[in-house]
This record gives sequence, C-alpha cells and structure tokens, in this order.
Amino acid sequence: MLATLDLAATFVLATECALGGVQADFDLFGILVLAFVGSVGGGVIRDLLLGEHPPAAFRDWRYAALALAATATVIAASLVLGRVSTFTPPLAVDVFEGMGLSLAAIAGARKSLDYKLNGASIVVIATVNGCGGGILRDVLSARVPRVLHEDFYATAALAGATLLVVLIQRFKVRKDGAAVIAGFAIFALRTAALLWAWRLPHLK
Amino acid sequence: MLATLDLAATFVLATECALGGVQADFDLFGILVLAFVGSVGGGVIRDLLLGEHPPAAFRDWRYAALALAATATVIAASLVLGRVSTFTPPLAVDVFEGMGLSLAAIAGARKSLDYKLNGASIVVIATVNGCGGGILRDVLSARVPRVLHEDFYATAALAGATLLVVLIQRFKVRKDGAAVIAGFAIFALRTAALLWAWRLPHLK
Amino acid sequence: MLATLDLAATFVLATECALGGVQADFDLFGILVLAFVGSVGGGVIRDLLLGEHPPAAFRDWRYAALALAATATVIAASLVLGRVSTFTPPLAVDVFEGMGLSLAAIAGARKSLDYKLNGASIVVIATVNGCGGGILRDVLSARVPRVLHEDFYATAALAGATLLVVLIQRFKVRKDGAAVIAGFAIFALRTAALLWAWRLPHLK
Repeated sequence: MLATLDLAATFVLATECALGGVQADFDLFGILVLAFVGSVGGGVIRDLLLGEHPPAAFRDWRYAALALAATATVIAASLVLGRVSTFTPPLAVDVFEGMGLSLAAIAGARKSLDYKLNGASIVVIATVNGCGGGILRDVLSARVPRVLHEDFYATAALAGATLLVVLIQRFKVRKDGAAVIAGFAIFALRTAALLWAWRLPHLK
Repeated sequence: MLATLDLAATFVLATECALGGVQADFDLFGILVLAFVGSVGGGVIRDLLLGEHPPAAFRDWRYAALALAATATVIAASLVLGRVSTFTPPLAVDVFEGMGLSLAAIAGARKSLDYKLNGASIVVIATVNGCGGGILRDVLSARVPRVLHEDFYATAALAGATLLVVLIQRFKVRKDGAAVIAGFAIFALRTAALLWAWRLPHLK
Repeated sequence: MLATLDLAATFVLATECALGGVQADFDLFGILVLAFVGSVGGGVIRDLLLGEHPPAAFRDWRYAALALAATATVIAASLVLGRVSTFTPPLAVDVFEGMGLSLAAIAGARKSLDYKLNGASIVVIATVNGCGGGILRDVLSARVPRVLHEDFYATAALAGATLLVVLIQRFKVRKDGAAVIAGFAIFALRTAALLWAWRLPHLK
C-alpha cells in the first residue's frame, strides 16, 4: 500500500510541477528537474529523516519513470495544445495538486508509523512529505514557498495527519483504514479551502 | 548537558524566528513553520550529517513542544501588544538571537566531539548547527541568508568552535568546561559585534 | 581514484564559487561559505542519499583544506589584481567550471556504482553530484539556479553519466575506463555548449 501511495503521489505531483515549469518558462531540463524534485522531494526528505538509505525514489526505478512520463505528457500536451494554462482551468490544477498533497502526506504518515516515533513527529513528517516537494520547487524557483503565506494548504496535511494519529493511537483504528479516512479528510479540507478561499489569519 | 543545550537553543531560536515571521507578515501556519525550521533546522542538518536517524528533534517530543510554546507566546504577545517590533528594541532581539547562536553552536560542537571527527569538521558542524536554522529560515523567505553578507554572526560561532576544539585537543580542558568557555566566547563576540557594528571586510 | 576525483572537483569548484562570491560582493566569511558549499555541497548530498555518514567532506580534512586554499588564492589574487573579473575572460571561468562539473559528476557516478543502484538512480546521483553544489550556491544567493533555465550545463552531466552507465552495464567496459571516457564527454559537451551557445528549447 505504501509504495502505491508514494507512486501515485509522484505521478500527480510531477504532472503539477511540470505544468508549473512550463508556465515559469524553464527549459526542457529545468522542467524535468522541477517535476522530479517537486514529486519525489518530499519523500526523499522523509527517507533521509527516517534514515532509509538510499531513499525509495533512488532504489525503485518506477519513481523516476513516473516523473519522466508525467513530464513527457505535459510537454507533449503543451506542444499540441499551446500553452496548457490557457486550456486548463486553474481550479482543476489546484484540486489535482490537493490530491497529490493528500497522497504524499498519507504516505509519509504511513511510513513513519513503522518507525515508532512519537505522534508529533509523525505529524511533522507527514506534513513534510506532503509539502516538501512543493517547498523545494518554490525554493528552486527563488520564491517564498506558497505554503508559508498563501493559503490553507499545508494546514490540511497537518490536520489530516493529526486525525490519523489520533484515530490509530486513541481509537485503535486499523492503520490502513485510518490512512484512507485521513487521506479523504486532507483532500476534502484542501478542496473546501479552494472553493471558499479559506485563509489563515495574518497578525499584521 | 547536550539535550539541555539543544532544547534551550530551540526555545530561543523559535522565539526569534516567530518574531521574524510576524514581521514578515506570514500567516499563522507560516509563522509556526518558520519557528520550527529556524529553531531545529541546524540540529537536524547536524544529525543528518552525523548519521543520527531520526534526528533528535524527531525523536524527542520536547523540541516540537518548545517550538510550539515559543510561537504561541509570540503570537499571544503580538495580539496583546500590537506589532511586537514596536515594543521590542531591535538590539534586544539581536542579543537574544546571539544567545541562540551560542547555545546551538556549542550543542553542535559537543555532539560531534562524540563522533571522532577531525577538528575542522567539528568546527564546520558547530557553525552549521549554529547558523543552519537561520539559513533555512532565510532561504524559505527567499532572501540571501543574512550570515553570508551582513555582519559578524557566523564568524563568532566559527571562532568559538575553534576555541573549543583547541582547548580540548591542545590544552586537554574537560569537554564540559571547554563548552561553557566557548559558549560565553561566542555570545561575547556576537554582542560586541552588535554594539560596535563590526563588519567583515568586503573585497569590492 | 574516487578520492582524487572528489578532491580535484572540490578545488576547481571552490575556486569558481569563491570568484562568484567576490563578484557578488559577499564579505570574507560569505565568500568562504559559498566556496565550501559550492564545492563540497554536491558530494555531501550524494553521501546523504547513499547513506554514508558522515559525508566524505566531513571525514577527510583535505576537502576543507582545499576549499580554504582555493578561497585564499582567489582573495589574494583579487586583492593584488583588483577585481578578478576584469582580468579573467569569462569564458575561461566557464570552461573551468565545466571541468569541475565533469569531475564531480564522474565522482558521483563512480561512487554510486558501488551501491548496486539501478541505472536511472546512478545517473540522477551523478547529476546531483555535478550540479548540487552550484544549485546550493545559487539558492544561498537567492536566485534561480542557473542550471534550471540558462543553458546546456546539467544536461551535459546527465548525458555523460548515461553514457557511463551504458558503457559499463551494456558494453562491459571497465569502470575506471568508462569513467575517463564519460568525464571527457561531459567536459567536451559543456565546452561545445559554451563555444556555440547551445540552449535547450523553451516551450513558451
């Protein structure tokens, strides 16, 4: 189940990051790097923190293959259709990204459950797995990571991961069941945040 | 002693980074992330370099709790007092940050002493521990890390860590005694640099 | 052979990054940090991914010594000669950097060959080893890493590493021989790219 979550997250996030690379006018190699870093980056940080060497994305050729396939698809589509962004309603891209966030966060929580960490660390690692790729992508694009100031994104992963830990540790729900529930919760929270433009308060 | 140093550094640096997040107008989650990354980031890089998995900040719930407490305190204070910066003399914040630098650098040196590294590596890891969190914070804020161009900050950590290595390896001072001396040296250097506006030379 | 490649890459890249730090008007410490991060950064990421702790650059004092020597040379030269850039044809600097790229990428490929990784991961790690330091340097300088949008740089490392993997796994060439061939291929590709101003296509 873990590998499936991880690979599904990789494909979704690679597609989303490749679109971002096209829109930011990176060259072909830059688009590929953005897609690779944005899709496997969160999982690589997770594996480095957990001490799994080499990270899954470097042991299993399917990660690189999926990132490459997603990038090739986006590039082909944007050559055929012109600028993809013109043809894609931005909301659809954001909802799609929310799916990647949910899959990656749950993969992170699921994996760190096997490492006997305390609940707070599981939540942090799940959030890092969910948002780490996007943060690396934004850092490589020399802009403030979206998750830090823009809208209700990482908070959805944090809330879902907390729900998962509570379900398992307090209510003794089975791990896979809790993962499914928490995954849908993250996706629902993120989609709701997009539809109603939720924002966290600023202090200034 | 190590855990105490590490936790004290975490609290001090989290407070300082949360203040920075408020002033940079990040949202609540962004402020929490800045405080967490800025306070435990240096120690996490240190543990990854030393091969300690998972890093201390992910094994011990007190790190996350302290970062959270510091952030909550800053947020509560800025809600009560209005913009904190208006009420806080900037020098006090900088001196406070110097304390965090000193605690974190010494924690890094103390820990790497147990790994039988050469002296140069101990000094580098101490400096990374001291400044790493601030560098990550600045990278996440999409600006050139302050330590690279602004003033006499990381150099204080470098000098103090060098002093510590020399005291232990050449003069056979006991590790804990040398750590206390070097810690005060870093804090004194940094405070002197603030008071007299020391700058390292530029070549242009 | 590996240590020689790694150390040669360190010296070349440290020189190049120290020049960059002088031109960007960083202070003395900032120049040293840029040179250190830019020269050993790619290898440190490689070692973290491969699970070698502490990374070679922290176990072997010669890395820090070479980075320091390169920085001191650049600083001395720029004090004696005035702004180095005035006296150095930019093309020479770029060709020199291509040498560092080639050495570092081959060091990365050579080392990951010992870890029984799949071919795609070897290529990725070689590319990360070759470009990682420069990416960290650019991130610390708060600009979009050159390799992502500017010209034919990382692609040379990627192509050379792919050649190396194919030579070894398909044509059973001996590892050291394949490394020499691939190293020259990377350097030749990069130099050709500079001479004829090759660029990868953009989609927009």
